[in-house]
Amino acid sequence: MKTDKKRGMQTIALSNPPVLAGWATIVGPKEGESPWQNYYDKILSDYMFEEDTFEKAESKILRETIKLVVNKNNLQLDDIEVFLSGDLLNQTVSSNYAARELEIPYLGLYGACSTMAESLVLASMLVDGGFYNKVIAAACSHHYSAERQFRFPVEQGVQSNPTNQWTATAAGALIVENTGIGPYITNLTVGKVVDMGQADIADMGSAMAPAAVATIKQHFADLNIPSDYYDLVITGDLGSFGMAIAEQLFIKEGIVPQPNYTDCGAIFFDKKQKVNAGASGCGCAAAMLCGPLLNMMKIGKINKLLLVATGALMSPITSFQGESIPAIAHAVAIEN
Amino acid sequence: MKTDKKRGMQTIALSNPPVLAGWATIVGPKEGESPWQNYYDKILSDYMFEEDTFEKAESKILRETIKLVVNKNNLQLDDIEVFLSGDLLNQTVSSNYAARELEIPYLGLYGACSTMAESLVLASMLVDGGFYNKVIAAACSHHYSAERQFRFPVEQGVQSNPTNQWTATAAGALIVENTGIGPYITNLTVGKVVDMGQADIADMGSAMAPAAVATIKQHFADLNIPSDYYDLVITGDLGSFGMAIAEQLFIKEGIVPQPNYTDCGAIFFDKKQKVNAGASGCGCAAAMLCGPLLNMMKIGKINKLLLVATGALMSPITSFQGESIPAIAHAVAIEN
Repeated sequence: MKTDKKRGMQTIALSNPPVLAGWATIVGPKEGESPWQNYYDKILSDYMFEEDTFEKAESKILRETIKLVVNKNNLQLDDIEVFLSGDLLNQTVSSNYAARELEIPYLGLYGACSTMAESLVLASMLVDGGFYNKVIAAACSHHYSAERQFRFPVEQGVQSNPTNQWTATAAGALIVENTGIGPYITNLTVGKVVDMGQADIADMGSAMAPAAVATIKQHFADLNIPSDYYDLVITGDLGSFGMAIAEQLFIKEGIVPQPNYTDCGAIFFDKKQKVNAGASGCGCAAAMLCGPLLNMMKIGKINKLLLVATGALMSPITSFQGESIPAIAHAVAIEN
Repeated sequence: MKTDKKRGMQTIALSNPPVLAGWATIVGPKEGESPWQNYYDKILSDYMFEEDTFEKAESKILRETIKLVVNKNNLQLDDIEVFLSGDLLNQTVSSNYAARELEIPYLGLYGACSTMAESLVLASMLVDGGFYNKVIAAACSHHYSAERQFRFPVEQGVQSNPTNQWTATAAGALIVENTGIGPYITNLTVGKVVDMGQADIADMGSAMAPAAVATIKQHFADLNIPSDYYDLVITGDLGSFGMAIAEQLFIKEGIVPQPNYTDCGAIFFDKKQKVNAGASGCGCAAAMLCGPLLNMMKIGKINKLLLVATGALMSPITSFQGESIPAIAHAVAIEN
């Protein structure tokens, strides 16, 4: 056995913990007005990023974030052996077109807003398994491309709901390597799809909370560690309503990671930025991880982090056809 | 080093070749009238499969195919440790909803019609890397859900183009295990996105052909094997026009795998079934692999197979915005 995974366990303890050798994030203008602005590598001055459509801008944000992390690490694009990414757009076109420009072997993912964790889970296994030494894991989203695809074009001025979340315009990219000085990826829990029958697409945080709690519970049980093991357990992106439900479920399940628990969606924006229940989108957890969280780890303000990115896996078509919202959450443990 | 991958090489030679322990496929009625009908596990009598929408039918086809392969191998669903799948629908909902019903840890993929190869590539690495012992790799598509999402609802009776391909209604699922009697997955080549500027969405085979040839060329070069090494090199799903272009490109590149070369899309249907340039869809390569190809391997009619599933990674939105079609191809070598 190369790893410590026991039969039937959902959690994998990596035998040669891969290293997060570098990270970068680019965020949109509103996102850059948040309390975390100093942790982001680049804040765009407008949402178009010199492109003529939101979709092209989203792909460019991802592409430039990847170029940035490669540059920050004094590497060239062709040093990267494989690139794992996904986004919210139909057919994950932001990632596909970024992969075209980058010319790196590419594996496309769809995990909705759980994508940053999904790409990290897979990148970690591909590096720990000895297949690659330099892998990029990434994810992105764009507020305006997501609004017109999932809800309404913003030009229509449709009123938002208090439980709505603001899809973040942001991309995060990490280089996962086989050796180096941490932080290290130590443990992974791949989530199961959980669906409690919630069908309100204006409240995806509530739909995703049970999936997040199920994955966290499984993670603690599989590893047999106390629920206060991590300095911070952070879900993403449940938003304020979903986070409140998760906190209730934690109490019910007796795992209580509070006060070491928060949610990327709930803290991504400042309350005065008027985003209803908070932030969402693949870029939300991606930017929180590649901005404040890893930079706080770098200076030792956080030493043990559990990122639990969450995804709502419905589509406008399935919602229209009366389906409830299936949700997923993957956990990635990052330790100094 | 656990594997034989050399630095800079796109191809991975697996050190403990994982085993294809089982496979199953379910296809639609028209698909079941093809010359390969005896190789399929189940042929549906109608496209709805007792559901009220094409999308729900597609998800059910995938779900039932997975249950079938699990049953065929005398396993239970909870023996499967992780499930990798994707499809063509927006937000890959066929796979997401199948994962909800199956309750297996799930990693969603988007690789368009290359998905069967992408899920096999990742499943193989996760098993070879020692993370899991029983993984399901799957993919599916449905003609009628794809037509209305990517082209027009068939009820509109829009005339098709000679270069159009018929999205197959089919799902394929494989169980990848760490030990057993073959066939084995020996080598993997993860593709780069190739885009030659072709923007005609009525002719995706031609857009994908250069990606297929690039991956095959890389595969032979990385492994330093002759281009007639495999009993069969099969791309999927270029269709007849794309396959003709691939054959020209092979000659230009001097790899010439003919007469050991064909294409899943070109041979999936009989010519008299009137499908223009052939078949397409994630289900095309999936059903060909899990139907005729692996069953021919089982009886020794094929001993060395290179599956090179191809994907066109555009979306209706990017085409509408004037973008050309980025394409990808991943190669999976399967040997007895």
